[in-house]
Amino acid sequence: MDPNMVNAGDMNGSGNLMDFLDEPFPDVGTYEDFHTIDWLREKSRDTDRHRKITSKSKESIWEFIKSLLDAWSGWVVMLLIGLLAGTLAGVIDLAVDWMTDLKEGVCLSAFWYSHEQCCWTSNETTFDDRDKCPQWQKWSELLVSQSEGASAYILNYFLYIMWALCFAFLAVSLVRVFAPYACGSGIPEIKTILSGFIIRGYLGKWTLLIKTVTLVLVVSSGLSLGKEGPLVHVACCCGNFFSSLFSKYSKNEGKRREVLSAAAAAGVSVAFGAPIGGVLFSLEEVSYYFPLKTLWRSFFAALVAAFTLRSINPFGNSRLVLFYVEYHTPWYMAELFPFILLGVFGGLWGTLFIRCNIAWCRRRKTTRLGKYPVLEVIVITAITAIIAYPNPYTRRSTSELISELFNDCGALESSQLCDYINDPNMTRPVDDIPDRPAGPGVYSAMWQLALALVFKIVITIFTFGMKIPSGLFIPSMAVGAMAGRMVGIGVEQLAYHHHDWIIFRNWCRPGADCVTPGLYAMVGAAACLGGVTRMTVSLVVIMFELTGGLEYIVPLMAAAVTSKWVADAFGKEGIYEAHIHLNGYPFLDVKDEFTHRTLATDVMRPRRGEAPLSVLTQDSMTVEDVETLIKETDYNGFPVVVSKDSERLIGFAQRRELILAIKNARQRQDGVVSNSIVYFTEDPPELPPNSPHPLKLRRILNLSPFTVTDHTPMETVVDIFRKLGLRQCLVTRSGRLLGIITKKDVLRHMAQMANQDPESIMFN
Amino acid sequence: MDPNMVNAGDMNGSGNLMDFLDEPFPDVGTYEDFHTIDWLREKSRDTDRHRKITSKSKESIWEFIKSLLDAWSGWVVMLLIGLLAGTLAGVIDLAVDWMTDLKEGVCLSAFWYSHEQCCWTSNETTFDDRDKCPQWQKWSELLVSQSEGASAYILNYFLYIMWALCFAFLAVSLVRVFAPYACGSGIPEIKTILSGFIIRGYLGKWTLLIKTVTLVLVVSSGLSLGKEGPLVHVACCCGNFFSSLFSKYSKNEGKRREVLSAAAAAGVSVAFGAPIGGVLFSLEEVSYYFPLKTLWRSFFAALVAAFTLRSINPFGNSRLVLFYVEYHTPWYMAELFPFILLGVFGGLWGTLFIRCNIAWCRRRKTTRLGKYPVLEVIVITAITAIIAYPNPYTRRSTSELISELFNDCGALESSQLCDYINDPNMTRPVDDIPDRPAGPGVYSAMWQLALALVFKIVITIFTFGMKIPSGLFIPSMAVGAMAGRMVGIGVEQLAYHHHDWIIFRNWCRPGADCVTPGLYAMVGAAACLGGVTRMTVSLVVIMFELTGGLEYIVPLMAAAVTSKWVADAFGKEGIYEAHIHLNGYPFLDVKDEFTHRTLATDVMRPRRGEAPLSVLTQDSMTVEDVETLIKETDYNGFPVVVSKDSERLIGFAQRRELILAIKNARQRQDGVVSNSIVYFTEDPPELPPNSPHPLKLRRILNLSPFTVTDHTPMETVVDIFRKLGLRQCLVTRSGRLLGIITKKDVLRHMAQMANQDPESIMFN
Repeated sequence: MDPNMVNAGDMNGSGNLMDFLDEPFPDVGTYEDFHTIDWLREKSRDTDRHRKITSKSKESIWEFIKSLLDAWSGWVVMLLIGLLAGTLAGVIDLAVDWMTDLKEGVCLSAFWYSHEQCCWTSNETTFDDRDKCPQWQKWSELLVSQSEGASAYILNYFLYIMWALCFAFLAVSLVRVFAPYACGSGIPEIKTILSGFIIRGYLGKWTLLIKTVTLVLVVSSGLSLGKEGPLVHVACCCGNFFSSLFSKYSKNEGKRREVLSAAAAAGVSVAFGAPIGGVLFSLEEVSYYFPLKTLWRSFFAALVAAFTLRSINPFGNSRLVLFYVEYHTPWYMAELFPFILLGVFGGLWGTLFIRCNIAWCRRRKTTRLGKYPVLEVIVITAITAIIAYPNPYTRRSTSELISELFNDCGALESSQLCDYINDPNMTRPVDDIPDRPAGPGVYSAMWQLALALVFKIVITIFTFGMKIPSGLFIPSMAVGAMAGRMVGIGVEQLAYHHHDWIIFRNWCRPGADCVTPGLYAMVGAAACLGGVTRMTVSLVVIMFELTGGLEYIVPLMAAAVTSKWVADAFGKEGIYEAHIHLNGYPFLDVKDEFTHRTLATDVMRPRRGEAPLSVLTQDSMTVEDVETLIKETDYNGFPVVVSKDSERLIGFAQRRELILAIKNARQRQDGVVSNSIVYFTEDPPELPPNSPHPLKLRRILNLSPFTVTDHTPMETVVDIFRKLGLRQCLVTRSGRLLGIITKKDVLRHMAQMANQDPESIMFN
Repeated sequence: MDPNMVNAGDMNGSGNLMDFLDEPFPDVGTYEDFHTIDWLREKSRDTDRHRKITSKSKESIWEFIKSLLDAWSGWVVMLLIGLLAGTLAGVIDLAVDWMTDLKEGVCLSAFWYSHEQCCWTSNETTFDDRDKCPQWQKWSELLVSQSEGASAYILNYFLYIMWALCFAFLAVSLVRVFAPYACGSGIPEIKTILSGFIIRGYLGKWTLLIKTVTLVLVVSSGLSLGKEGPLVHVACCCGNFFSSLFSKYSKNEGKRREVLSAAAAAGVSVAFGAPIGGVLFSLEEVSYYFPLKTLWRSFFAALVAAFTLRSINPFGNSRLVLFYVEYHTPWYMAELFPFILLGVFGGLWGTLFIRCNIAWCRRRKTTRLGKYPVLEVIVITAITAIIAYPNPYTRRSTSELISELFNDCGALESSQLCDYINDPNMTRPVDDIPDRPAGPGVYSAMWQLALALVFKIVITIFTFGMKIPSGLFIPSMAVGAMAGRMVGIGVEQLAYHHHDWIIFRNWCRPGADCVTPGLYAMVGAAACLGGVTRMTVSLVVIMFELTGGLEYIVPLMAAAVTSKWVADAFGKEGIYEAHIHLNGYPFLDVKDEFTHRTLATDVMRPRRGEAPLSVLTQDSMTVEDVETLIKETDYNGFPVVVSKDSERLIGFAQRRELILAIKNARQRQDGVVSNSIVYFTEDPPELPPNSPHPLKLRRILNLSPFTVTDHTPMETVVDIFRKLGLRQCLVTRSGRLLGIITKKDVLRHMAQMANQDPESIMFN
């Protein structure tokens, strides 16, 4: 890239963009909405800015301090992101807790207490009956002074549905009216934005506010969705907000994306209480350009966020998430078989979910269904509430469900899932309870879990993708945890009743605590989450941080790998990539391998038989010629050649900057008229004596456009686009310009090669 | 790259390299020693191989199975690396343990038992006196039946020195005779190799064997070095060995490096018992090209290695490292101040160590000192042994020292460092002991620690870089741990005696357990390690895995960040980069930012005034011309242009392949003589009727050489070289060839800009 040009695109726009200009151009170096950024150029601009500050800092102490502040601003942004993301996550957790309970009743001593807080502060509660205290009143008790019986049940049922509908309606209305971008999980769009695409407003302040509020509403409404994905979006909005405060980040789209990558890490950090997992998630799943500096800063942001959340302590257990667990028994080699089976289940669930959800979303996009988003949300909420209420495993919030499923049955556990028949002769420490036969509670819990599993599977497919904030980490984990717990209880009972079988004989003697059903639930959750998102390392590390021990990493890994392989066998795309494709975002995936044998010449435009490439010549076109060319085409830029005959490339001019430059020149520079010659050379061309004053545009010319030869294999071209983050690349043969390949051409070609509809790539 | 050419460089060399050849070229696609690989080309070749296997797999079931095996081979290699690296680490740990104790005495019941094992199996040991049992005999007891008194002390002292000298002499002799590459930590060279440089034999089987054996010897000899760095080298040797078994990896230098990256992760995983830290170390510190697939596989290899080591259980505590710790008290905000002070100390130590060590190594390289490596090792060993023996903190092995320094003083601790004065009225559970006044043991320990610290600092500078395997993780950590423990004890005593001071009043009431000196030791260790290596995330994660709790991540991070900033203020290079520079390896660091305003035209050759670029023409040179050009120059390749006049570039031919092609053609193709015309075009040029048969070399021509324009800023060029892993890049202006930039030119230019000696870059 021409250093002059780099200089021109300077952050403060103080703009020696054109020789004749004394006023800055506010728009220089920015991009239009729905356009792709040029990473190399952004990087160049930042280096230039940095160079300027460094050289200035030697001039005076004030400049030196300014340069120090500039160097520190990255850390300050990270600190602020961590603080805000942690605080928002804490507030969301508290609000969800309260509003979820509001569907069932209210605390009389203080209406802002949730059920648990209400009874916690009450003195009349015993440990065995933690959930019951006089201060907490169900609606039926409050309204008709009756807490038992069929009519009370129906009243509570009805009010539960009403509250749910009310929350959901409020949420979808807020989203529709104030911030349409607040819907969905946001991760597909964030991946696209981080890969260098501009979607203005997607990470704006309104989106932040509305997404936070509606997230609380939809999670409280009992819909089958989670807050984890949207929390990443919320954290990225925080990142975008704080980066707009520092010109280093606000004026450079490349640097801004470094901040956003770190913000995504902070989001996952607070969503799962897993700072290292968050950084790896950002690295593996969402980020595109992730230099080492960003790794370190992401880690910092993730830690600050986690500590902020911990100091808010929303769950009162000094843990960051509801479903933190500790197990006391090891796992045995023979258990790998059910773990791998759970992996297979997770892979199949992932495939089923992605296929059905995408089909449903496509239907919504293409048919009249999509015209009634509010009605859709109301209907799904009503169905969810009606079916969910009677079943205790679907009535409660999904994270509580997961927490109960992950839990190991201790001696004091009152859950139905822990209703085992105790051997009265056994006296053992509470933590180390041997396997026992299941009681009637466990059997009825199994039935309810099976029904809940089927319901969750079906309803989640229809829920994800509605016009409300919705994450699918939690529903996926719930599906896996339910399946896992059932398998776990099955294996446990099998081992108890048949400990003479060969497979159990070695490790499961009578009286031993050999099977932990909670661990199966956790493995199942990991498998299902892996099947849907295709995360690998970050998934295992997140789960590792939930259990806090290396001990269980092998089962988790076995399940995650199996699930990924099974799901990959049916289709390579995870849910986020599938949604990116569905929406036609121009996303060049780092993970896709391009293995076809095509060459640059097969992809470049113009194709054979098409009109020749629109080019500018270096010193023979008039202002009018250039304006006509701009008007007649919609290309984002034009190669500049020596002459139409020789077609030897000398540079590349951006459409946006050509328009700005000509407009400014016509307004301010004397003698520039329609038939002035435009020249890109160092010196003006020799003109006849009476010709009008020529217009010099060398300053906006990029003298180092990226070129490849027509024989370059496309796999190399794809690699270059990916690694250097190019917008376009010119194709030459022995120095002669032949054509151009844009990022869109590359994506279209890749879609074509994968037998997809190449026209689905929408934006440039 | 031309697809034909890609095809030609095929893995099995079945070679349609030139039209006329029917026999394979064994050397095509390989590189010479001390040369740089071309990453793009390696990637291309692998894609091609993959393509071939995929298309073949549809032909028959056997081919399908072969393709599955090929797809699985990556995981198999990882599994094997994990198993071997874990086993070797376990064996090394056990052997070091035994041989370290051998310096003091021998176990009579079984000579292969270490001191601890010996007394463990003895029934006559009480818990309080674990170290003393009749089976374990000091040399003095065995030889002169006397265990106390001055003469026994002198005898033991003398034998200690003799054993140390014996081990060290054996080690240095083995290294010199069998595997000169086995010396040092190996990490600088591995970084260079992973960045795409070829050093044959560096990761060979002999190096593996000799490094493993000598590592045991030198660690046992009591020298101030660690086994952690060399373990990474050992693991990489394992990786190289296993990758040579699979043609997918052995025939492709790019793919081989993916395996080596994973092996490095496995090495750190077993060195510190930190699989996640190992993966991040590989990512942050050593790797160059780290695709996501490698991340996942590295994680797998690291886990397998960790579990293999755990099942060997070398320390008998079911932990992977000797210095795993658990603390019971939280830290307080006010403690951040001493932690940051430790960070400053770590940064200063890092700077001091790097400067002195590099100065000493340069002296060794340039003066006669370097000619007596064996003598040097003997002298340093003798000095170390003589000074180390009298001080209990230097006599024992360094990992034991670190373990003791990290430890929290429990009630049963017998260490001198835990000699506090107990309050007889206090009855508290053993784990939660309040702060107590220090006893005389602690004070004498402080003196001994101070002396040991000074000694360690000095001796480590002279030890690292000798011709024996030597890591510096452990000595660095020991320096930090000693300083940290001393600061910790200081703070603890200050808090105990002055708990009415404002800074202590809030969190350190009398009778509270507020300061944990062991935590200070750990923070100090992290700071010193960070100062020397400049690791950040991986360092914190390794330490996090050692303590197993998020609780202490903030102190560790504060110290690591401070230490990095302080050290960076004195010089950007970590010890590994410094050694890379010292040795002149052509290493293009991903972390270095190039911020100068030079252009490609300033760097390319030929410079102004030099002879023009040596080029080939596409259809006008004879075989003799080409041979003369090859003979007269030593360039690695030649651009091919249309004609000397037009200088329009059409491709690039590698020297190695030109020589091979002409040699083969002369031998086997009729009519090819010295004045045959060499042509690179599709069709032979029109020649006069009697001219000799022309030689077609289009197949060896790379039709897609990488080009940039002369106006491209060097920062972009550096970025391209880094990200695409190029060997060379051609410079053009409006389609005309101007010059060439090689990786060496880039490195030389960067050295020049940083005011270093550009001629220090040795290899091409």
